[in-house]
Amino acid sequence: MNSAYERLLGLLHSLHLIHSVQGHLGWDEQVNLPSGSAGFRAEQMAEMARLAHEAASKPELGEALAELETDMAALTEDQRIVVREARRDYDRVVRVPADFVTAKARHSSAAFHAWAQAREARDFAAYAPFIERHIELAKEEADLQGWGDRPYDYAVDLHDPGFSAERISALFAELKSGLVPLVQAIEAKAGDSVSALKGFPVDAQRTFLSEVTARLGFDYHHGRMDVALHPFCEGSGLDVRMTTRFHEDEPLDSLFSSIHETGHGLYAQGLSAEHQATALGHHVGMAVHESQSRMWENQVGRSRALWRFFEPRYRELFGPQLEGISTEELYREINAVRPTMIRVDSDEVHYNLHIILRFEIEQALFSGALAVKDLPEAWNCKCEELLGRRPAHDGAGVLQDVHWSGGAFGYFPSYCLGNMIAAQNWAKARAVLPGLDDDFAQGDFSRLLDWTRREIHDLGKRYETLELVERVTGEPLSPQPLLDYLRERYGEIYL
Amino acid sequence: MNSAYERLLGLLHSLHLIHSVQGHLGWDEQVNLPSGSAGFRAEQMAEMARLAHEAASKPELGEALAELETDMAALTEDQRIVVREARRDYDRVVRVPADFVTAKARHSSAAFHAWAQAREARDFAAYAPFIERHIELAKEEADLQGWGDRPYDYAVDLHDPGFSAERISALFAELKSGLVPLVQAIEAKAGDSVSALKGFPVDAQRTFLSEVTARLGFDYHHGRMDVALHPFCEGSGLDVRMTTRFHEDEPLDSLFSSIHETGHGLYAQGLSAEHQATALGHHVGMAVHESQSRMWENQVGRSRALWRFFEPRYRELFGPQLEGISTEELYREINAVRPTMIRVDSDEVHYNLHIILRFEIEQALFSGALAVKDLPEAWNCKCEELLGRRPAHDGAGVLQDVHWSGGAFGYFPSYCLGNMIAAQNWAKARAVLPGLDDDFAQGDFSRLLDWTRREIHDLGKRYETLELVERVTGEPLSPQPLLDYLRERYGEIYL
Repeated sequence: MNSAYERLLGLLHSLHLIHSVQGHLGWDEQVNLPSGSAGFRAEQMAEMARLAHEAASKPELGEALAELETDMAALTEDQRIVVREARRDYDRVVRVPADFVTAKARHSSAAFHAWAQAREARDFAAYAPFIERHIELAKEEADLQGWGDRPYDYAVDLHDPGFSAERISALFAELKSGLVPLVQAIEAKAGDSVSALKGFPVDAQRTFLSEVTARLGFDYHHGRMDVALHPFCEGSGLDVRMTTRFHEDEPLDSLFSSIHETGHGLYAQGLSAEHQATALGHHVGMAVHESQSRMWENQVGRSRALWRFFEPRYRELFGPQLEGISTEELYREINAVRPTMIRVDSDEVHYNLHIILRFEIEQALFSGALAVKDLPEAWNCKCEELLGRRPAHDGAGVLQDVHWSGGAFGYFPSYCLGNMIAAQNWAKARAVLPGLDDDFAQGDFSRLLDWTRREIHDLGKRYETLELVERVTGEPLSPQPLLDYLRERYGEIYL
Repeated sequence: MNSAYERLLGLLHSLHLIHSVQGHLGWDEQVNLPSGSAGFRAEQMAEMARLAHEAASKPELGEALAELETDMAALTEDQRIVVREARRDYDRVVRVPADFVTAKARHSSAAFHAWAQAREARDFAAYAPFIERHIELAKEEADLQGWGDRPYDYAVDLHDPGFSAERISALFAELKSGLVPLVQAIEAKAGDSVSALKGFPVDAQRTFLSEVTARLGFDYHHGRMDVALHPFCEGSGLDVRMTTRFHEDEPLDSLFSSIHETGHGLYAQGLSAEHQATALGHHVGMAVHESQSRMWENQVGRSRALWRFFEPRYRELFGPQLEGISTEELYREINAVRPTMIRVDSDEVHYNLHIILRFEIEQALFSGALAVKDLPEAWNCKCEELLGRRPAHDGAGVLQDVHWSGGAFGYFPSYCLGNMIAAQNWAKARAVLPGLDDDFAQGDFSRLLDWTRREIHDLGKRYETLELVERVTGEPLSPQPLLDYLRERYGEIYL
C-alpha cells in the first residue's frame, strides 16, 4: 500500500496528463483542424472534459487529502503546499454538480456563437440575454462555492487567488489618476501617425521572430511556434506550443505578439518539470503569467538596448522595406502611441485604461448597479471618460471581446495587474542586475531569464500573487513602478 | 433508464472518442512533436492507454452485452452485428490482465529502441532476445485468449478476422507459383535501370499531389496531408490525417505513397460517420484496408488512363525536369521494375514475394521449426529462393522492418492479401463499370469511388473479409486476378 502522499501524487499526475491532452487538442483545433472537423473535435473535447472531471473528483483523491490533513505536521513544507492547493482544487470541483458544469459548457458554446454573430451584425441586443444568463450562472457558481455574498470576488479569485475587487479597485484608482494625464500629455505631442512598415515578406518575418524568440531563451527542443488566427501559448514545460499570425503590412504585430507568447512560454518552460503535476510546478495565477509575457514584450522587447542588437539583422532581412527609416524612427514605430477603441490593438500606454474600463463595468454588472441592456451606453460613456472618444459602433465597442461569451468574468483585471507586476519586477531586476542594457545590446538575455527562473518560476505556486510580489521586489504591489516606467519610456520619446 | 442497447452505444461512443484522441496524439508525435518532448508524450500516451483500457473493460459494457445477448432475436440485424463485434472486442480486452498489457507495452518500447540500434549497427544478435521474448508474449496472449494451440492463427485473426495460416498458405502457394516465373521473365527483359527523375522542387511536388489526391476524392474539409518521416494515414471519417515525405530526387516515392495513403483515407472517409463508434462504421480488417490503398496506388494511380489526364499538369509543373522524357518513358518510370532487398522500396511485381518470405518465416518461428538465432540465415536463404539474391547485410535484410519490435506478428500477410483483394475488386469494377479508362482520362474517378463506397465502405464490418470479397466479386478470394493484372500491366510493358 502506497502512502497517502504517493497516492495523491499519482492521482494528480493522471489529472495533469489529462489536462495536458485537453490543452493539446485545443492547440490543434486552432492550428490544424480541417474546416469540417469542428463538430467531431467538440465531441472529443467533451469526452476528455468528462474524463478530467472524473479524475479531478475521484473519491480516492478526497480520501488521500483527508488522510494527509489529519497530520499535516508530518509533512514537509513543500508537501503541505501540494496538499493545500490540491484541496483547493478538489473542493472547487466537487462542490459543483456535474449537471451545472454541463449546463455552463452548453451555454458557453451557444453564447460564443451568439457573440460572433452579434459582433458581425453589431447587434448587442441579440447577445444581451446570453450575458445575463452567464452572470446568473456565475452567481450560482459562487454560491455553490461558498462565495454567495461576493460573486465577483470569487470570479477574480479564480484567476488570481488572494485578490479581491476592493484591492484591485484601490490599485486601479491610483493607476488611473496617474495614467489619464500621462496619456493626454502624450497624445497632445504624438499627434496622428500611421505605420510606415509595409510589405514585409512573411518568410523573412518568420525567420526573424524565430531568431529573436530563441535568443530570448525559448527552448525549441521543448516547444514550437505555429500560425493560428489568434496568438496564444499552450502547454507545460515539456511541450510548449505557441502561435502567431502574419500580415505583410503589420510586421510588428506578429513580432511583438510572438515575444509576448514567448514570455508565457519561458514561464511554462521554467516551471519545474519534475513537479509539473502539483502546485510546486504550477504557475501562480493569470496576473503573474501575464507579468512574464508583458515584461519580455514591453520592457525588454521594445527597449533601445535590445534593438541595438537586433536592428542590423532586421535591416538585413528587410532592407528594402526599411529604406529611409532611421534607427530613431524605427524605435518610435516600435513604441508608437496611437489611440484605438480596440483593446488588443492598443499600445501599452493606453492598454491599462481599456482594462480599467472593463473592470469597472464588470463590478457594476455584478452589483446590479448596471443592467445588461444598458451596457452599450455605459461602455461608450466610460470610453469617453477614459479614452477621450466613443467607439463608432458596438462591434468596435462592447462587442469586441470574446471573454464574457465564455463566462470569463474577473479575467480582464489580470492583464493590468500583470502590467503592474511586470514593471515592479523589472525595476527590481534592473536594481539587482546592473548592466542589463549592455547584456541586451550584445544579445544576451540570460541574466534576466535566470533571475526570473530563480525568483519566480522555481517557486511554482508556493506563494499567492501578492506575497510573491513582495518577496521578489521587497515592496507591496503598487502601480507606481508601472507609471514610472511608462513616464520614462514614453516621456523620453514624446514629452 | 436507457435501454441496454442505448447504454452499449454510449459506452462504445466514449471508447471510440478515447481511441480517436490516442490516434491523434500518435499523428502529432510523428508530425509536430518537439525533439525533447518524446518522454512527456509517452506519459500522455500511457495515461490515455490506461483510460482506454478502463473504458473498454467497463463492467457496465459487459452487463449491457449480457443483457442484450439474452434476447438477440429482439434486435435488428444491424444491432446484432454491433453486439457481436462489441462482444468480440470486450472479451479480448477482459481476458488479458492489466499487468500483461503493461508488460507487453514496456517490452515493445524497449524492443523498438533495441531494433533501431541493431539495424543501425547491423547487429542482429543484440536484437534477437527481444524477438524471442515477443514470441513468448504472443503465445502467452494467444493462450489467455483461448487460442493456445494456434498462436499464429490468433496473430493473423487479430488483423484479419476469419483468416488462418492454413488458408493464407494455400493462397500464397498459388501466388508464388505464378509470380516467381513472371518476375524472372520481367527481370530478364527489364535489365538494370536507374530513375531519370531528379531535382523535382518540393513545393511543386506538394502542389501536384494535393491536386491528384483531391481529384481522386479525398475530402480536405475533413482531413489534411502533412510531412512525416514515414507516410501513414490516421483517423476516422470526420478527421483524417495523412502524411507523406519529400525528396527532390524521388518524386514518385512521395506521389505514390500519398496516393496509397489517400486510398486508406478514402476508406476512412467512406465509413459511416453516424456509426463510427460501432462495427457498422468500422473497417473490416487490415487486408481490406490495404486493398483500398493498393487499388488507388497501383491499379488506378499507375494506369495509362490516369496519366493521360495528369501528365500535362505534371509537365506544366516540372517542365525542366521532364525535358527529354517521353510519355512512354514516364509511364515506364511509374511502373519501373527494379529488384531491391527492401520491402518498402519494392515495386508491385516483387512486393508480394517480400511478404511471402516474411509469412513463411513467421510460421516457422511460431511452430518452433526455426530458432530466432538462426533467423538471419533463414532470411537470406529465402531471399535467394524468392528474390534471386541475398541482402548485403542484416540491416538491409532481417533487420529492415519495425513490425516485430512491436510484437506485430501476423501483420505482414495483410499487405499481400490486400493486393489480392485489390486486384479481384478491380477486375470486378472494370466488368460492372465499363468505360472507367475514359473516366480516368478525363480526371473523373467518381464512378469507381462510388462503387467502393457502395460495395465496401458502406458495409462497415458487417462481413468478415472472405465473405465480403465473395459478396463484392461473386468469387472466393483467389490470387489469380492479381496474377492476371500483373501479367497484363507489366507484360504489356516488358514482355
